[in-house]
Amino acid sequence: MKARVTVTLKSGILDPQGKAIEGALRLLGIEGIASVRQGKVFDIEIADGDRAGVETALKKAAEKLLANTVIENYRVEVLP
Amino acid sequence: MKARVTVTLKSGILDPQGKAIEGALRLLGIEGIASVRQGKVFDIEIADGDRAGVETALKKAAEKLLANTVIENYRVEVLP
Repeated sequence: MKARVTVTLKSGILDPQGKAIEGALRLLGIEGIASVRQGKVFDIEIADGDRAGVETALKKAAEKLLANTVIENYRVEVLP
Repeated sequence: MKARVTVTLKSGILDPQGKAIEGALRLLGIEGIASVRQGKVFDIEIADGDRAGVETALKKAAEKLLANTVIENYRVEVLP
């Protein structure tokens, strides 16, 4: 079973890395960029099981390890 | 206009960071994890324009800056 956990910064949290990428894109001549925010994505292969159980396990993983819930949001998607 | 560029390692490329996360999840008692691969996600706010033009600009951004196409794949999604 495949799943994807996406971790992004909460709005309001400064993202200097994103700002740097924004500047670099402008220097490269790519126009119209208003803002860039960088996040992380985890592609996880997990043993087959009921969808709800897998989602619970991955939420636990995100809370405990993958995301810093003080400054980051996470989203768990179990792929079909 | 919002868009998301997802950058993931090509299959076959070693991912020591993913391996470390995999080990850590096991130690935390989260069961059934077979593999983890980490990637990056860029949430981009871009000036409104025709969808094809925006996609072309973002593909250029990914090729030039966001992804290392020797070892990484990228995917551009323009959100509605």
